[in-house]
Amino acid sequence: MLSIEDNHLLTRAGPATPMGQLVRRFWVPVLLSRELPEPDCPPKRLTVMGEDLLAFRDTDGRVGLIDPVCPHRGANLYYGRNEAHGIRCVFHGLKFDVHGACVDIPIAPPGTDRERLRIKAYPAREAGGLVWAYMGPEPVAPAPPALEFTLLPESHRYVSKKWQACNWVQCVEGALDTAHFSFLHMVIAEDEAKALAMLKHAAIGAQSVQNDRVRWVRDDPMPSFEVNPNDVGLTIGGARRADEDLYWRIAQFMVPNHALAPSAFPGELMHGQTWVPVSDDACWIYTYTWHPDRPLTEREREMCESGHTVHAKVDEHFRPLAGPHNDYMLDREEQKHRSFTGIAGVSEQDAAIQDSQGPIADRTRERLFSTDVGIVKYRRLMLGLAKELQEGREPAASRLGHRYALRSGGWVAQRGIPLETVMQERFGDPQGYVGRHYGLE
Amino acid sequence: MLSIEDNHLLTRAGPATPMGQLVRRFWVPVLLSRELPEPDCPPKRLTVMGEDLLAFRDTDGRVGLIDPVCPHRGANLYYGRNEAHGIRCVFHGLKFDVHGACVDIPIAPPGTDRERLRIKAYPAREAGGLVWAYMGPEPVAPAPPALEFTLLPESHRYVSKKWQACNWVQCVEGALDTAHFSFLHMVIAEDEAKALAMLKHAAIGAQSVQNDRVRWVRDDPMPSFEVNPNDVGLTIGGARRADEDLYWRIAQFMVPNHALAPSAFPGELMHGQTWVPVSDDACWIYTYTWHPDRPLTEREREMCESGHTVHAKVDEHFRPLAGPHNDYMLDREEQKHRSFTGIAGVSEQDAAIQDSQGPIADRTRERLFSTDVGIVKYRRLMLGLAKELQEGREPAASRLGHRYALRSGGWVAQRGIPLETVMQERFGDPQGYVGRHYGLE
Amino acid sequence: MLSIEDNHLLTRAGPATPMGQLVRRFWVPVLLSRELPEPDCPPKRLTVMGEDLLAFRDTDGRVGLIDPVCPHRGANLYYGRNEAHGIRCVFHGLKFDVHGACVDIPIAPPGTDRERLRIKAYPAREAGGLVWAYMGPEPVAPAPPALEFTLLPESHRYVSKKWQACNWVQCVEGALDTAHFSFLHMVIAEDEAKALAMLKHAAIGAQSVQNDRVRWVRDDPMPSFEVNPNDVGLTIGGARRADEDLYWRIAQFMVPNHALAPSAFPGELMHGQTWVPVSDDACWIYTYTWHPDRPLTEREREMCESGHTVHAKVDEHFRPLAGPHNDYMLDREEQKHRSFTGIAGVSEQDAAIQDSQGPIADRTRERLFSTDVGIVKYRRLMLGLAKELQEGREPAASRLGHRYALRSGGWVAQRGIPLETVMQERFGDPQGYVGRHYGLE
Repeated sequence: MLSIEDNHLLTRAGPATPMGQLVRRFWVPVLLSRELPEPDCPPKRLTVMGEDLLAFRDTDGRVGLIDPVCPHRGANLYYGRNEAHGIRCVFHGLKFDVHGACVDIPIAPPGTDRERLRIKAYPAREAGGLVWAYMGPEPVAPAPPALEFTLLPESHRYVSKKWQACNWVQCVEGALDTAHFSFLHMVIAEDEAKALAMLKHAAIGAQSVQNDRVRWVRDDPMPSFEVNPNDVGLTIGGARRADEDLYWRIAQFMVPNHALAPSAFPGELMHGQTWVPVSDDACWIYTYTWHPDRPLTEREREMCESGHTVHAKVDEHFRPLAGPHNDYMLDREEQKHRSFTGIAGVSEQDAAIQDSQGPIADRTRERLFSTDVGIVKYRRLMLGLAKELQEGREPAASRLGHRYALRSGGWVAQRGIPLETVMQERFGDPQGYVGRHYGLE
Repeated sequence: MLSIEDNHLLTRAGPATPMGQLVRRFWVPVLLSRELPEPDCPPKRLTVMGEDLLAFRDTDGRVGLIDPVCPHRGANLYYGRNEAHGIRCVFHGLKFDVHGACVDIPIAPPGTDRERLRIKAYPAREAGGLVWAYMGPEPVAPAPPALEFTLLPESHRYVSKKWQACNWVQCVEGALDTAHFSFLHMVIAEDEAKALAMLKHAAIGAQSVQNDRVRWVRDDPMPSFEVNPNDVGLTIGGARRADEDLYWRIAQFMVPNHALAPSAFPGELMHGQTWVPVSDDACWIYTYTWHPDRPLTEREREMCESGHTVHAKVDEHFRPLAGPHNDYMLDREEQKHRSFTGIAGVSEQDAAIQDSQGPIADRTRERLFSTDVGIVKYRRLMLGLAKELQEGREPAASRLGHRYALRSGGWVAQRGIPLETVMQERFGDPQGYVGRHYGLE
Repeated sequence: MLSIEDNHLLTRAGPATPMGQLVRRFWVPVLLSRELPEPDCPPKRLTVMGEDLLAFRDTDGRVGLIDPVCPHRGANLYYGRNEAHGIRCVFHGLKFDVHGACVDIPIAPPGTDRERLRIKAYPAREAGGLVWAYMGPEPVAPAPPALEFTLLPESHRYVSKKWQACNWVQCVEGALDTAHFSFLHMVIAEDEAKALAMLKHAAIGAQSVQNDRVRWVRDDPMPSFEVNPNDVGLTIGGARRADEDLYWRIAQFMVPNHALAPSAFPGELMHGQTWVPVSDDACWIYTYTWHPDRPLTEREREMCESGHTVHAKVDEHFRPLAGPHNDYMLDREEQKHRSFTGIAGVSEQDAAIQDSQGPIADRTRERLFSTDVGIVKYRRLMLGLAKELQEGREPAASRLGHRYALRSGGWVAQRGIPLETVMQERFGDPQGYVGRHYGLE
């Protein structure tokens, strides 16, 4: 439960807000690279944390991320021509490069001062199939976050995006709250085999031990949580009874807006998400699936593309086909007899329940339980960092890009072992850090 | 003509308003019973006087009417599973019964205090094919209104609902203003026989005297009104010249939101309406047709269902097919040559003109005539009751549920007879009370 | 660049605003005459400068322009019957004539005071295929503007209207800014002949010299402007290098909302536009094409009707088929290889770029050049007139209706000749005045 003030502080990310300032200290994804497929292709309009921007790829393949308003008379450069090394306003021909510099003014005599015609441009870079922007105040952008999927060849990953019509923070909380797997994503089948088959579809590339995992998750809805700080966020472990042992599901949160899913056993595909506010009541969710050791198979890639997994089925504008407009295609018969929600797909189930919390979840009315400890610590961390930044203290994580090379996943361990030791067992590192495999640090 | 303040007071029915408090002293319909067709069927979302609620029918057939927000983390229970004797949140499995009690918390240890997880629930009951709610502050709900259609077997009545995109009060006023029958619902046919045939379609089950009635209504657009208080509202009689006699059309208003139509002659079908605010600029209109002495015929039931009578033609969400989006299917040729409005259906004609008064009619600019006396007295009554309640005086009608068993209708009487005597002649009771037929009082 | 205050003053035209007061000193078009095709036809709803009105044509063919709210109970007269010499409310039968007088009250006894039932009505007249209204405070309307197309027989003109979803002032500015022809409306064809053919389609009825004009406009994107006051506005000449001479394109602005296009050479069709605010972020654009000396040919009329010229292609509600909802049917391949914008049609190109300036263009961020001098003088003129009116000085132009008979167009003149002399050469009058041909003054 938060005060009205803290709920406001936590969720608002506009340019003039403390949380907006904090997020702007980091690189954030703003597009899939494939949305700008080639040099001089059509530009794309976008809105990031309340700021309207224009992205275009120039003749050299560089991405520009600029204020779309022409400084001459305010025409929108979206209608512009993406010409040789710059975008030209179609109203009177002013032309701008990827850095926002005005490089041609046909309506003014040679020698006209171009500096007063410079437009705002944010540094942009590409990694992991995404275009990232740095929208912060510093003259030099921080080191980019070395999320593992960004360090691998394209063959080893699949990246998607989807629109969600609610505040970004309740989506992050949904990912950190691994207790809800006993309900929201659970199946109710007549027999174990059917249940397993249904869940396997959702968990792309899961192995044989899956059978037990379904049972453990279903039979213990009240995992014990342990939450450790890591260098760039939090490691959140939830332990369920697994016959004699404990079944750990361990998620990673990385400041300010990344989380890794808790499911993968060794050798399985891994998944993560990054949330980027569009406005205070909508966000883009970037979802990535990767395998550190091998290319994704054709079959795995098809499953990602077909949606209803951690990736949603979306239209050409990346809007989910199942959404508030059609009640997420909720099938009440399905809900009565087979799936807990009656909604197909982990991504779609998450969307339904997160949207249902309202455009901006009202955290002043909550009644939290011990299974919510991960969420509580996440909020405390983010509120603390935002407040510190207001007092002039920059977030340490923004200088530790290489430390984002973390892994998350599942493990079966003996009872009584602390999370740190479980992490060492599962990942060979107490924080799940794998940067050394990639020559980092 | 009202002051701005009184117009505001009369029309606003949100939780914190005086009129909202008054209406909440009474049972109000919130659904058709057939919208929750069987035990454990899918729940329904609804908004009543600005309050978002969830209705569900439990395993025993009881209707629950609850706050849809899960007290744990604010997920909406609409997505919940309607399980054995309660609805279960799909986020973390908390379960609630029809009284709002939390009956299961799988994510918390046994012995956890459930009282702090109780959610708001309003008493609900069913009568006359409707689900009624009591949303008032009292620990004990008042006696339900014994409207005659609720006392009869299902075979003797037909009940429908429709959405209307304006404030509820101008709809009530439309029903109490029986003077407009000389215009809004009038036909303009080349010959009397055709006119009669057209109007007969609208007036389901009207008898042979109808012929004269059309003429009387058309030829005297300025009825003389007499308005008497009854135990639970107002009896509003409008008398038109009927050759040597007077043709009375008598409507009943029952506090706070019911009205009975003035058309029925003895032996004919009767009609009434109840208005329930959704917000200040939209309402549900429940319309009922009944015969006290016999089942409705197949033909009568078909006419009710096909709309364009006092019942509108609606889609599966109870939205009228003819509405502001398509100008109520107004046909200007029809209007020029055959019907006064060019709009088909009494219900649709009423909707067009009531919507046209604006989202909330501006009563500060009106110029009223003597034919508006029923409306004037209705406003005075409602404003008075709302103000009295603010001063701590409860409305007497809320304790007189049995006195709602009233009838309305038409009659031809000699000139010079007061309304009370006409009522005695027509209904055998000066108020039109028929509760004794049903063993009331 | 304007201050926030001046931008607000310039653009807002609601009833209580200084600019709204200024525009209301003049006749403004409110409908095409053909929207009210015959006596007693269906009425039309309209909104002019924030005022909701109803227009109807009575039995004598006169147009009434009235407040649509019935003074009795606020029903909207739009649903009324357009009967003999008046429109009758379908709620209770009150009837009003084109002057707003209540001419029948069936629900009140004879002798009832009708004066208190009078409704607001604005003087309306028809000219040039348009219905014009005078919405100002004066008891006597000013002389109507003798725009040349209104002085000609119907055969000699074509008049259209289209909706535009932005503030009217940026549309006016688009018309006065003739510098943008070197970009927004330019073609990029492989060869000169193709370019010419494409542009010829847009410029209905242009002659052989067109070939050179395309080249001159394309090759000199920085015309030299000269702006002269005329009796009712501004004459704006832009001169481009035309080999040894200068190619002048001369537009006319007439207070408060008319402009004539700069293209026509002697013998060619002429074009003009009048902008009428609906609200502060939408307007109607009336566009007229005329030939002073002959009827429009069948071919010319077809070209006007088919859109994608100075006239847009619109649907039955006069909404452009190409609009913000479909990105103006922008074709990026077309833009890369053939047309500067990738948008078909001069009218559509203007709409795209004007809408793109935002609902109300933000003039506080502009960086203007010498090619913007026409716009600067237009703003100064309008702001000055609005401020003078606030101080009690009426705009002189409102008493000079006959001086609106101006022409605009193109001319090739020797270098070094002032605009006034060019006007004399081209039009036989230093202001382009042709009223004497029509017996004016």
